[in-house]
Amino acid sequence: MVYQVGVVGAAGYAGAELVRLLIAHPDFELKVITSNADAGVALADVYPSFSGVSDLVFTGHDDPALASLDAVFLAVPHTAALAQAPALLDAGVAVFDLSADFRLADPDVYERWYATPHTAPQLLATRAFGLPELFGEDLTRAAENRAAGAPVLVACAGCYPTATSLAAAPALHMGLVAERGPVVVDAISGVTGAGKGANARTHFCHAAESVEAYNVCRHRHTPEIEQILGLADRVVFTPHLAPLRRGLLSTVTLPLKEEVVGALSAEDLVARYREFYRDRPFVRVLDAGRQPETASVVGSNACQLGLAVDGRAGVIVATGAIDNLCKGAAGQAVQCANIVFGLDERCGLPLMACPV
Amino acid sequence: MVYQVGVVGAAGYAGAELVRLLIAHPDFELKVITSNADAGVALADVYPSFSGVSDLVFTGHDDPALASLDAVFLAVPHTAALAQAPALLDAGVAVFDLSADFRLADPDVYERWYATPHTAPQLLATRAFGLPELFGEDLTRAAENRAAGAPVLVACAGCYPTATSLAAAPALHMGLVAERGPVVVDAISGVTGAGKGANARTHFCHAAESVEAYNVCRHRHTPEIEQILGLADRVVFTPHLAPLRRGLLSTVTLPLKEEVVGALSAEDLVARYREFYRDRPFVRVLDAGRQPETASVVGSNACQLGLAVDGRAGVIVATGAIDNLCKGAAGQAVQCANIVFGLDERCGLPLMACPV
Amino acid sequence: MVYQVGVVGAAGYAGAELVRLLIAHPDFELKVITSNADAGVALADVYPSFSGVSDLVFTGHDDPALASLDAVFLAVPHTAALAQAPALLDAGVAVFDLSADFRLADPDVYERWYATPHTAPQLLATRAFGLPELFGEDLTRAAENRAAGAPVLVACAGCYPTATSLAAAPALHMGLVAERGPVVVDAISGVTGAGKGANARTHFCHAAESVEAYNVCRHRHTPEIEQILGLADRVVFTPHLAPLRRGLLSTVTLPLKEEVVGALSAEDLVARYREFYRDRPFVRVLDAGRQPETASVVGSNACQLGLAVDGRAGVIVATGAIDNLCKGAAGQAVQCANIVFGLDERCGLPLMACPV
Amino acid sequence: MVYQVGVVGAAGYAGAELVRLLIAHPDFELKVITSNADAGVALADVYPSFSGVSDLVFTGHDDPALASLDAVFLAVPHTAALAQAPALLDAGVAVFDLSADFRLADPDVYERWYATPHTAPQLLATRAFGLPELFGEDLTRAAENRAAGAPVLVACAGCYPTATSLAAAPALHMGLVAERGPVVVDAISGVTGAGKGANARTHFCHAAESVEAYNVCRHRHTPEIEQILGLADRVVFTPHLAPLRRGLLSTVTLPLKEEVVGALSAEDLVARYREFYRDRPFVRVLDAGRQPETASVVGSNACQLGLAVDGRAGVIVATGAIDNLCKGAAGQAVQCANIVFGLDERCGLPLMACPV
Repeated sequence: MVYQVGVVGAAGYAGAELVRLLIAHPDFELKVITSNADAGVALADVYPSFSGVSDLVFTGHDDPALASLDAVFLAVPHTAALAQAPALLDAGVAVFDLSADFRLADPDVYERWYATPHTAPQLLATRAFGLPELFGEDLTRAAENRAAGAPVLVACAGCYPTATSLAAAPALHMGLVAERGPVVVDAISGVTGAGKGANARTHFCHAAESVEAYNVCRHRHTPEIEQILGLADRVVFTPHLAPLRRGLLSTVTLPLKEEVVGALSAEDLVARYREFYRDRPFVRVLDAGRQPETASVVGSNACQLGLAVDGRAGVIVATGAIDNLCKGAAGQAVQCANIVFGLDERCGLPLMACPV
Repeated sequence: MVYQVGVVGAAGYAGAELVRLLIAHPDFELKVITSNADAGVALADVYPSFSGVSDLVFTGHDDPALASLDAVFLAVPHTAALAQAPALLDAGVAVFDLSADFRLADPDVYERWYATPHTAPQLLATRAFGLPELFGEDLTRAAENRAAGAPVLVACAGCYPTATSLAAAPALHMGLVAERGPVVVDAISGVTGAGKGANARTHFCHAAESVEAYNVCRHRHTPEIEQILGLADRVVFTPHLAPLRRGLLSTVTLPLKEEVVGALSAEDLVARYREFYRDRPFVRVLDAGRQPETASVVGSNACQLGLAVDGRAGVIVATGAIDNLCKGAAGQAVQCANIVFGLDERCGLPLMACPV
Repeated sequence: MVYQVGVVGAAGYAGAELVRLLIAHPDFELKVITSNADAGVALADVYPSFSGVSDLVFTGHDDPALASLDAVFLAVPHTAALAQAPALLDAGVAVFDLSADFRLADPDVYERWYATPHTAPQLLATRAFGLPELFGEDLTRAAENRAAGAPVLVACAGCYPTATSLAAAPALHMGLVAERGPVVVDAISGVTGAGKGANARTHFCHAAESVEAYNVCRHRHTPEIEQILGLADRVVFTPHLAPLRRGLLSTVTLPLKEEVVGALSAEDLVARYREFYRDRPFVRVLDAGRQPETASVVGSNACQLGLAVDGRAGVIVATGAIDNLCKGAAGQAVQCANIVFGLDERCGLPLMACPV
Repeated sequence: MVYQVGVVGAAGYAGAELVRLLIAHPDFELKVITSNADAGVALADVYPSFSGVSDLVFTGHDDPALASLDAVFLAVPHTAALAQAPALLDAGVAVFDLSADFRLADPDVYERWYATPHTAPQLLATRAFGLPELFGEDLTRAAENRAAGAPVLVACAGCYPTATSLAAAPALHMGLVAERGPVVVDAISGVTGAGKGANARTHFCHAAESVEAYNVCRHRHTPEIEQILGLADRVVFTPHLAPLRRGLLSTVTLPLKEEVVGALSAEDLVARYREFYRDRPFVRVLDAGRQPETASVVGSNACQLGLAVDGRAGVIVATGAIDNLCKGAAGQAVQCANIVFGLDERCGLPLMACPV
């Protein structure tokens, strides 16, 4: 059976990546792509890589055809998903939201960090969190709801939270991490993470040959990481911009419990992480001593993890590499949709990056 | 039916791209990958993007298993193919050679430009030239030979000749081009074109933020372009290196016949090129006024063409963009193999680049 | 003696480069920098590299202080120089214009290529053309005029015309080039050439890892190149964009006179070019067989030239590398000002790029 | 008075940057440049940016002319400085060592981290540590020694330690930092930091469009940072490689003393840092809310610092941006030499980067 789907906000980077994946997906048929700015324009005129491959044309976000689809992916800025999701859910459409609007369980936290009211808090209790490797039960429940005709809203995890949480969660889950003290997350993103908007920061001549930190101590992914990992007020998250297009590396330094220091080798840790991620096709834990390169995952839905233990300072350093647009956005949303629609979670998703 | 295939020289860039394509190919099963330098090493240890995807391990070029395969792709430097092809052909293996060894029909031309003896000139008469859009009959004949049990040797076109010829051939074929005077080909390649060898030129700190011409008036693809296009001693080919990994753009300036100047619009030319490449799934002729970007084809087997006419100076400027490792090497070889084995020529080949 | 100078349009890339050079110049004192968009903003807030180095603040283009300066550099788009130059000249200010407004000697040609009226054609007869290595007499005359109290207007050459003309002019001057047939100029520029405006083309994620031709057969530097070189309706100019910030390489293919073909070696040509550029401190002719890399000139006012001869096709291939913002814009303007004010032409100008 | 100087290891990246600076230095005359690999080769043939600027030719490291110079800069790998420094000191030459050989005060620590014997421990007690902003007294003493005819050996700080320490030292000095718990240093370097050697990691096609951590929990700059900052066994240092040529950003997360949390604003911290670095011409503390970009310091000896306070997690996040080859290597060595020879510390050193 083929399900009919649409992408709202398909002219942005995450949206265009969704289009790439959905066009090639064997079980989803992409019927509608919307963009208010590019309504009426052919997809291939905005993204020439689709030339000769797809004749889709953008419609506006208010395209009534959306309401008759099986699923809609919302690749819009925050608040726009709040505006659009309720009606789609009422129409029986499964909604996979890539924005931040439904990620934070507590609407007060949302309002504090995003400085805007949460207009649909009633949806938070039942939304599924879209990070399959760590919140698989949410998605199983969503699949059951869909089968039962109940509404399905999946709040897909953000790019930084995905890489960070996949790197940190097993250590926390195993009880290796000290119960107080900062957990330092320094992450590096490619420029697609800054979005398609042309501005001084995304200008080639600013971004090339330079690195910088940004939104230090105030990036909105901080509370999302803390919520996923259960680390209230402990995460120091510093994102950096580097001159690459796609790719995201998160370096997480976790303080060990005193009794663990000295007793844990990197090899042990690798073995435990591999056990934790057994049967998760997109997560690969590298051998001790090896570190992931973002280029090894770009274009794919894979996440590669590197692990090291510093017995001197008493910490784990865990690194996670993903493609911010794929596993950090569009790919993860499709992975969630696969699960919700009862398909193999790998369905239609690239397993590997180009070798070079 | 699934055919068993191997890649000789699989640790180089073109070889690794072949591995990427063949692993995902529905009708070819990749059984053997060889590398003398990396024999015994796992593929994923050399190219971490294969981590979790393939357990293949390199063997040496003398792996006896090669002789029992249906097809072997030679992704080796010139002279190495001369050394290896004859025995494989004798063993009944179809050989797809990505090197220059069998491209030039005249062994004297080969010896002059490559400064080495041609040790298998007897194979030149019957080899097929591997550029399906321009030498389709060669490949049809090769497919018939294979069906009849006769040897199959395909000399796949080089990267610069592919982009250049796809851009220039229709204008020549249509009789628009003056019969004397230089045809100027200025092309730009990404650094993968310089190969995997680490040296002063391929060092990041040399190649980044710089462009340069190289091998000016003496690049070995010159006689290959002249042979394909029938332009003896008329091609001035200047290749340039630019700071990108994959991607190749060839800008070809063709002098028009006097009677054509003033009578030919870019729109006409686009229409004629589209007719010429009708039914060729990988070639896309852009509208007049648009120009191809290499990023729009990277990772795919597509070629995008741009066309302009300069009535003042009396020339056509035709540009062709390909991925040098895919349509310029591995993808084209798989496309040729698809035809030889009776499959759809698109089989297993990516039709589009990532949108960003 | 120190001359007081100003930069109109100092917030753009060429303007900021002028500021960099003039701040460090021993004989010019930079008093005024203007930008309509950034009036009232500190220079260091727009370009943080000036932090701790300069306290200059932008004023508007109508800053009355401009009229009392010794010299003003106009780093504005075309038509804006037409609007501003006459009043400055009337006020006795020497004007160095980096725009295209006064480059073309024939106002009809200007109006045809720029599609706008030329509002000050009376200034064209006496303006000096600012390309010191080829139009030294213009600048000597301007220096005499300045000394005599007459107005001084220098129309500085464009970036592509500078690299192209320095590469091609000696061969033409020596009578080596055939008197008909296209002269093909394929040039590659870094993204600063597209200006500081943030748009789809200058977005990092568009420009990185890609090359493309643009404005094919219709770039406005075409008539400027033809005027400098005396090649009416013979220049086919195709500019390309590559993923670097600064740097410009022009590859010029010049058809040889029949009697020259076969009689001219690259070594001869190098020797003749060196003679032609004897005593020109910024032009360096590389040995035969070597090619200039743009990174070797970036940040400096140097131009490096490479020369090759193709006896088969009967052409010279001459390549010229410059920094588009320095020798192609700001540095050349300062070089012209040095000459006009009777200083050593090297004064305050960087002679070399960083080695890496 | 002009001092005669030499550079040992001048063909490497730090060495070539020394040559660039020393050629333009008004008080040092560069007489000798050595390279064992390139002995006999002209500087401009290895680094074409010197073409037309310098006629220097490399000699071997054993060039006897070194012993008669006033100062020698050692830009060689560790152990090579151990081998060469003693004889130069005996000859009365002031030695500025850019290697790690004399940085660590405790030879046991050196031997543990570098896995090689320290063959000149007797020189450690009197060597000066070359980081003028934090060890000014060392250099004052060295200047006195030189004036008195005593030997002068300056162990210039490493690139990561320089950026990290300039960012962290004031907070530690002011007593803001908790007395236990990890101090996390995540730093990002351009590829010149990996050296001129061509290998798989420095290949353009590996380094471009990718980021990765390396030498996690075992980089040799860790004990150097701990020594400078007095943070024994507390520094967790994770270096990363990003696709830029020059530039280094260090992001340091320092746990605050409990009594400081909540009482310290970013504005306070900026004011205190500015007081700390008053009269230090190369260090610029940005306004609260701003972050340094490496491109704003590349090519110069500047260090830009950004400061943020996270009251939730109780930490300072301090970022420091330098040019790894200039302030992180060659520029710092020249700055030290300026002080030792009684010159203005800014002498011959670029104060600013190109604006773009």
